[in-house]
Amino acid sequence: MPTTTATIPSGEVNNHYPPATSPTPAPLPFTCASEDEGWVWTQIKAEARRDAESEPALASYLYSTILSHSSLERSLSFHLGNKLSSSTLLSTLLYDLFLNSLTTDPALRAATVADLRAAHVRDPACVSFSHCLLNYKGFLACQAHRVSHKLWNQSRRPLALALHSRIADVFAVDIHPAAKIGKGILLDHATGVVIGETAVIGNNVSILHHVTLGGTGKVGGDRHPKIGDGVLIGAGATILGNVKIGEGAKIGAGAVVLIDVPPRTTAVGNPARLVGGKEKPSKLEDVPGESMDHTSFISEWSDYII
Amino acid sequence: MPTTTATIPSGEVNNHYPPATSPTPAPLPFTCASEDEGWVWTQIKAEARRDAESEPALASYLYSTILSHSSLERSLSFHLGNKLSSSTLLSTLLYDLFLNSLTTDPALRAATVADLRAAHVRDPACVSFSHCLLNYKGFLACQAHRVSHKLWNQSRRPLALALHSRIADVFAVDIHPAAKIGKGILLDHATGVVIGETAVIGNNVSILHHVTLGGTGKVGGDRHPKIGDGVLIGAGATILGNVKIGEGAKIGAGAVVLIDVPPRTTAVGNPARLVGGKEKPSKLEDVPGESMDHTSFISEWSDYII
Amino acid sequence: MPTTTATIPSGEVNNHYPPATSPTPAPLPFTCASEDEGWVWTQIKAEARRDAESEPALASYLYSTILSHSSLERSLSFHLGNKLSSSTLLSTLLYDLFLNSLTTDPALRAATVADLRAAHVRDPACVSFSHCLLNYKGFLACQAHRVSHKLWNQSRRPLALALHSRIADVFAVDIHPAAKIGKGILLDHATGVVIGETAVIGNNVSILHHVTLGGTGKVGGDRHPKIGDGVLIGAGATILGNVKIGEGAKIGAGAVVLIDVPPRTTAVGNPARLVGGKEKPSKLEDVPGESMDHTSFISEWSDYII
Amino acid sequence: MPTTTATIPSGEVNNHYPPATSPTPAPLPFTCASEDEGWVWTQIKAEARRDAESEPALASYLYSTILSHSSLERSLSFHLGNKLSSSTLLSTLLYDLFLNSLTTDPALRAATVADLRAAHVRDPACVSFSHCLLNYKGFLACQAHRVSHKLWNQSRRPLALALHSRIADVFAVDIHPAAKIGKGILLDHATGVVIGETAVIGNNVSILHHVTLGGTGKVGGDRHPKIGDGVLIGAGATILGNVKIGEGAKIGAGAVVLIDVPPRTTAVGNPARLVGGKEKPSKLEDVPGESMDHTSFISEWSDYII
Amino acid sequence: MPTTTATIPSGEVNNHYPPATSPTPAPLPFTCASEDEGWVWTQIKAEARRDAESEPALASYLYSTILSHSSLERSLSFHLGNKLSSSTLLSTLLYDLFLNSLTTDPALRAATVADLRAAHVRDPACVSFSHCLLNYKGFLACQAHRVSHKLWNQSRRPLALALHSRIADVFAVDIHPAAKIGKGILLDHATGVVIGETAVIGNNVSILHHVTLGGTGKVGGDRHPKIGDGVLIGAGATILGNVKIGEGAKIGAGAVVLIDVPPRTTAVGNPARLVGGKEKPSKLEDVPGESMDHTSFISEWSDYII
Amino acid sequence: MPTTTATIPSGEVNNHYPPATSPTPAPLPFTCASEDEGWVWTQIKAEARRDAESEPALASYLYSTILSHSSLERSLSFHLGNKLSSSTLLSTLLYDLFLNSLTTDPALRAATVADLRAAHVRDPACVSFSHCLLNYKGFLACQAHRVSHKLWNQSRRPLALALHSRIADVFAVDIHPAAKIGKGILLDHATGVVIGETAVIGNNVSILHHVTLGGTGKVGGDRHPKIGDGVLIGAGATILGNVKIGEGAKIGAGAVVLIDVPPRTTAVGNPARLVGGKEKPSKLEDVPGESMDHTSFISEWSDYII
Repeated sequence: MPTTTATIPSGEVNNHYPPATSPTPAPLPFTCASEDEGWVWTQIKAEARRDAESEPALASYLYSTILSHSSLERSLSFHLGNKLSSSTLLSTLLYDLFLNSLTTDPALRAATVADLRAAHVRDPACVSFSHCLLNYKGFLACQAHRVSHKLWNQSRRPLALALHSRIADVFAVDIHPAAKIGKGILLDHATGVVIGETAVIGNNVSILHHVTLGGTGKVGGDRHPKIGDGVLIGAGATILGNVKIGEGAKIGAGAVVLIDVPPRTTAVGNPARLVGGKEKPSKLEDVPGESMDHTSFISEWSDYII
Repeated sequence: MPTTTATIPSGEVNNHYPPATSPTPAPLPFTCASEDEGWVWTQIKAEARRDAESEPALASYLYSTILSHSSLERSLSFHLGNKLSSSTLLSTLLYDLFLNSLTTDPALRAATVADLRAAHVRDPACVSFSHCLLNYKGFLACQAHRVSHKLWNQSRRPLALALHSRIADVFAVDIHPAAKIGKGILLDHATGVVIGETAVIGNNVSILHHVTLGGTGKVGGDRHPKIGDGVLIGAGATILGNVKIGEGAKIGAGAVVLIDVPPRTTAVGNPARLVGGKEKPSKLEDVPGESMDHTSFISEWSDYII
Repeated sequence: MPTTTATIPSGEVNNHYPPATSPTPAPLPFTCASEDEGWVWTQIKAEARRDAESEPALASYLYSTILSHSSLERSLSFHLGNKLSSSTLLSTLLYDLFLNSLTTDPALRAATVADLRAAHVRDPACVSFSHCLLNYKGFLACQAHRVSHKLWNQSRRPLALALHSRIADVFAVDIHPAAKIGKGILLDHATGVVIGETAVIGNNVSILHHVTLGGTGKVGGDRHPKIGDGVLIGAGATILGNVKIGEGAKIGAGAVVLIDVPPRTTAVGNPARLVGGKEKPSKLEDVPGESMDHTSFISEWSDYII
Repeated sequence: MPTTTATIPSGEVNNHYPPATSPTPAPLPFTCASEDEGWVWTQIKAEARRDAESEPALASYLYSTILSHSSLERSLSFHLGNKLSSSTLLSTLLYDLFLNSLTTDPALRAATVADLRAAHVRDPACVSFSHCLLNYKGFLACQAHRVSHKLWNQSRRPLALALHSRIADVFAVDIHPAAKIGKGILLDHATGVVIGETAVIGNNVSILHHVTLGGTGKVGGDRHPKIGDGVLIGAGATILGNVKIGEGAKIGAGAVVLIDVPPRTTAVGNPARLVGGKEKPSKLEDVPGESMDHTSFISEWSDYII
Repeated sequence: MPTTTATIPSGEVNNHYPPATSPTPAPLPFTCASEDEGWVWTQIKAEARRDAESEPALASYLYSTILSHSSLERSLSFHLGNKLSSSTLLSTLLYDLFLNSLTTDPALRAATVADLRAAHVRDPACVSFSHCLLNYKGFLACQAHRVSHKLWNQSRRPLALALHSRIADVFAVDIHPAAKIGKGILLDHATGVVIGETAVIGNNVSILHHVTLGGTGKVGGDRHPKIGDGVLIGAGATILGNVKIGEGAKIGAGAVVLIDVPPRTTAVGNPARLVGGKEKPSKLEDVPGESMDHTSFISEWSDYII
Repeated sequence: MPTTTATIPSGEVNNHYPPATSPTPAPLPFTCASEDEGWVWTQIKAEARRDAESEPALASYLYSTILSHSSLERSLSFHLGNKLSSSTLLSTLLYDLFLNSLTTDPALRAATVADLRAAHVRDPACVSFSHCLLNYKGFLACQAHRVSHKLWNQSRRPLALALHSRIADVFAVDIHPAAKIGKGILLDHATGVVIGETAVIGNNVSILHHVTLGGTGKVGGDRHPKIGDGVLIGAGATILGNVKIGEGAKIGAGAVVLIDVPPRTTAVGNPARLVGGKEKPSKLEDVPGESMDHTSFISEWSDYII
């Protein structure tokens, strides 16, 4: 890792790593978290500098949002503060709030970096880290959620809920501050995602837009889904109740799931059924939350009859 | 009710009523509308005062939006005016518009109070009346819709449509100004709700996010669904055409409904079918729009085969 | 057409053409593109003038957005510049960008006019051209997308993606800048529409809200749907992968489509099947993207069993 | 008066009254205050309508600020609310504050009308009432001061001082909320005017820019000038201490006055002296605050020696 | 000139010309106006690029205001549009207005360049052309005035007056749109400058802050000062009435001038007198509007008696 | 002091110290700087809390600007960031800049506290510390200047000049970033103050509005006034050139001073002369910058002849 960093001249983007659309990315150069954080921030600045030079109309935006800042957490806090501010919740207040949380909590920063990598590796339309940082509403909503979650856990609930409301207004992503979310999360497209109060999401999960992890009714308590590591949830899928989606499972687009899904199986349709059948469902070999394979099950889906 | 009010010292929140997650809430202290309105407003102010004291970072927002106002309609008009304003539709204009409508029409204010109560009783994540007033985009979209509906009926259609457009942009909730909506409505999460021009919605209805009450095509006239009292429509359900959803019926998440659903039955799936069968559907005993039970039908849904 | 124009006194709206809810509109007076453009602009100004007179509260908005401008492209550039601006992407920058693209590219302007006509003819809730220009988020998102697409093709990709991000935030419509979209497009309601990088959409297509034209996974390359001319895609439908939806086909609301759909057939359900059966699907006689008939297939859909 | 009003067709400006630069204006049609108020408001609307028609680029501004309002006090409250708002003092709050004061206090409205007339009659550069209402920072600062003075007298001092601060920032006019100001006041150009806490200004006074009515030091109590009716104070004049400027006196531009000035005399220079000499000063025959004669004393000013 | 330009590598500032504080600047490389314009614009961009590189916190501002623009008139129009905009006069409208005037009128652009040079040569605190363009409120007010003057002459008077009002609010510089102003003008510091309707100012005039060129009273007609070429007017000087200040004259700070001042003489004091005496005033040898010598007359001023 | 602090219950304002209009204030409880800073901040918060309770309309402003902050430097940075921000220089950037300077430089904070005390003790219209912090444009301009001066000394000159420009636009106070200013400064009313590049101002100086400390011409170098400790400069006074105003001197309102003024003397008039005569000027016994006595010299001013 240090070697690689040393070979990137300031101002140049390291296009060799990781190739955006490579089917088999080289293993990520994970070292310790803060080194990794520094490497990604260096990449982001190099990308932004390249783009500012090629596109003067965007340079002001790139400087204000990225290049004028001394760290990733300052850049992100500035960007979220501006995006989520309103006439009654000013950007300086939000900026302060984000900056304070991100500065004092290395786990938040590590999760941010893991999410940036997740988008970069899994989404072929993600052309750079800075593209994700600037433009992915799912990424931004997720980072803001983590701060609202931290506030919730500090019993600063009215503030957590106000932040929740701004995220829902601005990004159309509605994640209850109490919901627990892992690292390496990709909320792709993200519009319309709803994640309820007692939901839990593992690491390396990919969730498409319009996905609901909803509750069962008006009784409180533990009432939302638990999503295992490496799960992929397709666009428009609805999962309701305190059900368990096993690790590495895949939920097809538009599926409506009301009971548990075993690990490494695929559930599709409304009502949902397991591909391969309830008794002997087909087992997945890759990790769908990372491979993002949405459609390969078609060939063996007996209901699929067009 | 007066007794209760009398016992709440200014600045304290009456946490005894109604307990946010109580499974069996005590009967609501309904009296006459304006007394009820006053009681709710007193609660909202007490909640906001408590939150302002515990969270200085939010105090400015709570004072500007709630505590500096002399009535619920002023607070709501201010909040909606700010949320829905743009660089070409200024907040003062919208504030005036909302305030004038709410001040002169007690039915609008009564519907607001009924909606606040609906969220408080039905949604276990709703921690207080002020939480709903400040943060629920479904609640806010619904109040703004009622004003645009009033303008529509006064033949101020260009203004009604401009307001409609702002609600759709800001909250991602798209309710045609001509649509008729009852009281005690809960639009939970609300992102992506679409309700067409000739739709009619009864009282005490609960509608989750991504629900469509859509039309049948390009011919005008009466072409959208009619939703009876007490109906619950799950997340992502699509109901198309001038069909009747009988009172107390339940539409499952993701259901696609194109023909009538009898009262107190449950329709699920895409295409939708009745739980219990077309000939002898199971009859619901509670009011699903109020009980919010999304998933209890699973046990008797023959198609549900994961 | 010139005759007709001549007979509209300035300040009056030509309500005779085309009647908003007429089931059989008179043939459109297409002549050359720029003449058509001028005619529509004249109509829009007459409508706005009429509305400004009848509704003083809206007059400021109508003057700033329409009546103070000398051409449709100026009005549209102003409106989009305001709607899509943020604290770090100023309205003047966006205005300049839109105006420059629209002024120099007659094809963009012709597509705008075709989209205005599409909304006017196909959507009975569309009361006027100005209503569409001012208020339809699908229309506005589509026009902004065409400019971001042009930037993408000029290799100004960071700017195209920044614009893409603003469209997704503001309208909750997520169209990748590389996606190719024809003319005469109606994105009705539009919230939650997602259209991927290698998608192609023909002419005279109508797409409802929550529709996804998505990809197949993390491998790049041609991986999104191809939509033929005249297709209608119902609310919440999900089409995934490099599949072909034949010209004049209809995709029912909530359908999940993973393989090709033949021309002039109807696919419904999750998983989707063809109405009339896989072997001998029923053939449509009208063009669904124009007739907007969402529900007439019910009578012959064997699965539909409520 | 009613006759005149009746003869102005809507949309036409009554240019016959009062001719902007007429040396001898016809006597003002004073009747009762509210009738007068109505007449001026009718004029303002007619002027704004004429200007909106001739200048589309300004129409939006004229509609939002004047033509969309039902009364002069609403228009003025809207205009002041926008001008004086900041990111922490929102326009709706200020609008409400102004509207409430102006609506409940006829004396405030009568003073506004008298000031509009003063500018119209005395300033040859004032082309219309609406020109003054929209553009004269002295007029606007004076109206806002009257509301802050009212708040001061109601013991709402922190709010009065906050308003004072906004007026000083926005208009560079610094009038202490406690200062008492009469009617028919013209603050011409107005930049840099400073009027201290215990100053008192009579009726029909004209004050040019950079004029100071200042105090004597750090001891409190009555320490600022008292300005009689009909006084004219030239640009840059400085009057310090609890001195009395007699009615109908004239203070020359740049004069520095530290002791009393007798009625109907002229003080000029730094240090100031009386034109005509201390013992037998020349007596003015017209009312300088109304005639606005700044320079006719030159011929008899013995010091004037260029 | 071309030679010089050719030797400035892109990104480097030509600090050799003209040295900011040089007592005897080399003759300006005047050629034809548009070449000159191009040379200054090249300088400005080089300065801004240097500053953006050395100061990341300012880079966003420099890119948005200067470096993203293709010409001086676009940069200036953008800057003025932002500075002068308000919630009811949007920046895009003003940008359009300025850009249209500057693009179509080479004389306006030549005056802008002459004013930039004037500040650069005459004000030792002016460190660069871009410093003046960005930060000098006198320069900006003067450019905006020229556009309002053009509108006035085109009989677009309500718009000219609205612009006048914005300039007076934002810069505290109050120049009536009808006032005629030459080229090579320096309004140094500028706060509080007031210039009346019938004032005329020649070329190469320097005017300090708080200077008044005022009228004589309420009668219309030609009533303001006429300032000859090369005049210097010191801080706080007040000149009233249709008097003539001869070319190359100097008016001392705080002087109050009510009658003509001969060419190349110096008037000081309140009331003003000529240095050297009324009969045989001292004659100036340099051009005070260019040499900016404020104080050298002291030695021969007989009144000066500290 | 600690005793006193201990006896002020939180939420109560210590009205006993120092009485706003007391002619002989008790000696200030100076101890070490940071203790003093803490005491003033405690006072400010108590005042703001009292005002927020008595005036709900102002509470939001008081919370956002004062009560939500944990220190005086955060409150001041937030307030200045909002006041000085523009559409191209965002509040978060300025907030960061101010906060960073104030946090790392105790001398800046000590000067702020000394200025707050100066306003409180010397200006009878200053009702509280929070009144000064929130509303005094002279105080705010001075604090912002100190940060721009620090940037200037760090060779961040383009940023220093941009800040200078914002201060001049917003407060109409124009202090060159290079000017050196002491502590305990009162800029009373402040509009129109101009202080040049090489000016130096001592401690405990009071300067009224429209005061100019100007240069001598276009030659660079040391060319602005040097103001000794304890000087009082009256409204509209103009001091030009590298002249020395001796400690404890008083410059009368409107005086024009071009040569040195001896310590503890009084200069008045235009041209200025010494009270008591050039040879044997009257000697002041108090410190005019602190006593603020503007007018007591009248009795012995021989020129004063009204």
